[in-house]
Amino acid sequence: MSEIINIAKNAKKASFKIAKATTNEKNKALGLVAEYLDKKRSFIQSENKKDLENAKEAGLSSAMIDRLTLSDKIIDSMIKGVNDIINLPDPVGEVVRMWKRPNGLEVGKKRIPLGVICMIFESRPNVVVDAGALCLKSGNAVVLRGGKEAFYSNRALATVIHEALENTDIPAETVQVFPTTDRAAIDEILKLDEYIDLVIPRGKEGLIRKVVENSTIPVIKHYKGVCHIYVDSEIEDYKTASDIIINSKAQRPGVCNALETLLINEKIAESFLPEIVEDLKKAGVEVRGCKKCLQITRDILEATDEDWDTEYLDLILSIKIVSSIEDAIEHIQTFGSDHTDSIITSNYANAMKFIEEINSSAVFVNASTRFNDGGELGLGAEIGISTTKLHAFGPMGLEELTTTKFIIFGNGHIRK
Amino acid sequence: MSEIINIAKNAKKASFKIAKATTNEKNKALGLVAEYLDKKRSFIQSENKKDLENAKEAGLSSAMIDRLTLSDKIIDSMIKGVNDIINLPDPVGEVVRMWKRPNGLEVGKKRIPLGVICMIFESRPNVVVDAGALCLKSGNAVVLRGGKEAFYSNRALATVIHEALENTDIPAETVQVFPTTDRAAIDEILKLDEYIDLVIPRGKEGLIRKVVENSTIPVIKHYKGVCHIYVDSEIEDYKTASDIIINSKAQRPGVCNALETLLINEKIAESFLPEIVEDLKKAGVEVRGCKKCLQITRDILEATDEDWDTEYLDLILSIKIVSSIEDAIEHIQTFGSDHTDSIITSNYANAMKFIEEINSSAVFVNASTRFNDGGELGLGAEIGISTTKLHAFGPMGLEELTTTKFIIFGNGHIRK
Repeated sequence: MSEIINIAKNAKKASFKIAKATTNEKNKALGLVAEYLDKKRSFIQSENKKDLENAKEAGLSSAMIDRLTLSDKIIDSMIKGVNDIINLPDPVGEVVRMWKRPNGLEVGKKRIPLGVICMIFESRPNVVVDAGALCLKSGNAVVLRGGKEAFYSNRALATVIHEALENTDIPAETVQVFPTTDRAAIDEILKLDEYIDLVIPRGKEGLIRKVVENSTIPVIKHYKGVCHIYVDSEIEDYKTASDIIINSKAQRPGVCNALETLLINEKIAESFLPEIVEDLKKAGVEVRGCKKCLQITRDILEATDEDWDTEYLDLILSIKIVSSIEDAIEHIQTFGSDHTDSIITSNYANAMKFIEEINSSAVFVNASTRFNDGGELGLGAEIGISTTKLHAFGPMGLEELTTTKFIIFGNGHIRK
Repeated sequence: MSEIINIAKNAKKASFKIAKATTNEKNKALGLVAEYLDKKRSFIQSENKKDLENAKEAGLSSAMIDRLTLSDKIIDSMIKGVNDIINLPDPVGEVVRMWKRPNGLEVGKKRIPLGVICMIFESRPNVVVDAGALCLKSGNAVVLRGGKEAFYSNRALATVIHEALENTDIPAETVQVFPTTDRAAIDEILKLDEYIDLVIPRGKEGLIRKVVENSTIPVIKHYKGVCHIYVDSEIEDYKTASDIIINSKAQRPGVCNALETLLINEKIAESFLPEIVEDLKKAGVEVRGCKKCLQITRDILEATDEDWDTEYLDLILSIKIVSSIEDAIEHIQTFGSDHTDSIITSNYANAMKFIEEINSSAVFVNASTRFNDGGELGLGAEIGISTTKLHAFGPMGLEELTTTKFIIFGNGHIRK
């Protein structure tokens, strides 16, 4: 197990070097990583095959096997991802503010890398490349622990990254993967706060809770996305509202920013509910409604208390009729997950009230919840979405992988 | 113990209300708190007396008893502190950036309170008022757990705050203290991540480590401040260097930003070391030097390996001779605590190198380490200093008690 401590120590060492690397050096290294991913396709795919064969033997679902597969198309998209990151601005070194104190001290806040990041994730091996490239660009070292079903694939991708970095001044230890699938190694690394600055777990709620409970290192995470849309008493037109709702729920139901609960103002429920239920059904969505809903239409299932805090990640939607915007806000404060919430309204005061009082990581007016995503909001690639309010709240891009230190220029200043 | 859950739940409830309060409402409430602290002096002091009597019985040191005492002077300074916080700008509501996406979505980042903060601290009861006022001004609810030796004093101060808040629209539960000195209550609250957004422990390293190990809530803290000054091979003059060193070490040795280790470049050690040892001794400082130091002067004690990562919090200083700025940086990276480090130099390149490569919460050129303080750096009052790189790194003022949410204005936008 001392292997894990060595990995953490080597990451810390590497972090001092990568923190000093210039943007040009980091971009050159990323260019080589992209090149090597292309050149080493057959090696990557032959290692990936080992995982795929084990997965078939273990009887994993075809969806799971699909997520594991490093097809040419997936490798192409990893290469594109690395090239996109090359084109993103480097956040490191920016002086975000500078001011002069009455005594003449010049004080500034300068952006620096966090140091060492540990990422614990499930399934998709492309995370090794995506997260590796984001951490490298932001001047951090990263230690990655993927699912055991992707062990050979993850290791192969790390090997290719190392081969690329060996041709640069950036240490190979900037990107490391766990050498073992032993679960005890996770518990061990989560206590190494001396070497690791941040843990980002991505995967099922159970995995994330386990990380939070065991880690002495700060954790940024989101457990789940129970996202809401509130349809206000005044809306521009039915069609716009319906488009937003269907897009939020059905465009990609398996992701964290998909809609899970629809709240409808009682003033328009009589006409709105039957129409939207019909449209949802056309989109293949199962609808579960509150008691008031059932008084309007019998064409839906009855929602239980459990529904209000369930993240379906599936073509299922719960609907509740509320008596006012205040009721809607209270429901979201009670059952929401601080992730993504949206209001559909044509009323100015209610739009502003919703924006003001809902303190989720992203609050929308008249737009689909599906836009809560680093790329869609303009941050570039994201390493995850955070509902931890500390440090990063919402999508985490390159800037969120940095912090600021105070830099102070004096000329013999002493404190009186 | 369900008492603790109730406190956390009430804090969460209060947090929604205080988050919505306007700056005027919050300042009016703080004005009343200041007024009531003045009006209720005799009540506060009679409760304080209970703690003081218990402390004397328990044989606490006179320094401890001094820190516990709520003299008129201390109450005056608490009142001044609250009035100072009234005059600080309110960070809540600021839109720190806003941009337009190619599809027309308007995206902004808006500053909001963190929610509920739990503060665990030792000794000084004035923290109830200082932290209470900072949290209230930044729109947060706070739950405070002070040392058991200050139980009656802390409770009395909370009572006075409650009486003041009862005359406002801000709920009294915005500021709560623990109703018990039972240590199990701390372990209980540290698991209530459903209600509490941040824990700030302040006190001895042992207390802080215990909080970090047990908390499922994010923690911002610093364990210790092993602060360094590196005296470069080229310096402007001896006097300026000596003033900075003596000020850093001796102006207030018991605090976290006091100097603990002095690194001296070997090129000037022969002349610099004997002089500074003499000045340090005049200031009452015990000096412990490395082997090389002892070859230059026998007038000091020998440092052991343990000295390099010791925070003395006392009039003791360790000195090491290093062969270059690179050596100095490596020493700080190995033994430092990411807190405060300073270089004394007249060389431009070395000043910039130190600023660039030392990633402590505050990095100084030609100034005393004692300036790493919210007030001194211009943040206004501080709630603590963080060496956790996440969220806040360095002194934490009002702004660090907030986060930003994404606000997005659309007009029927759906994701393609």
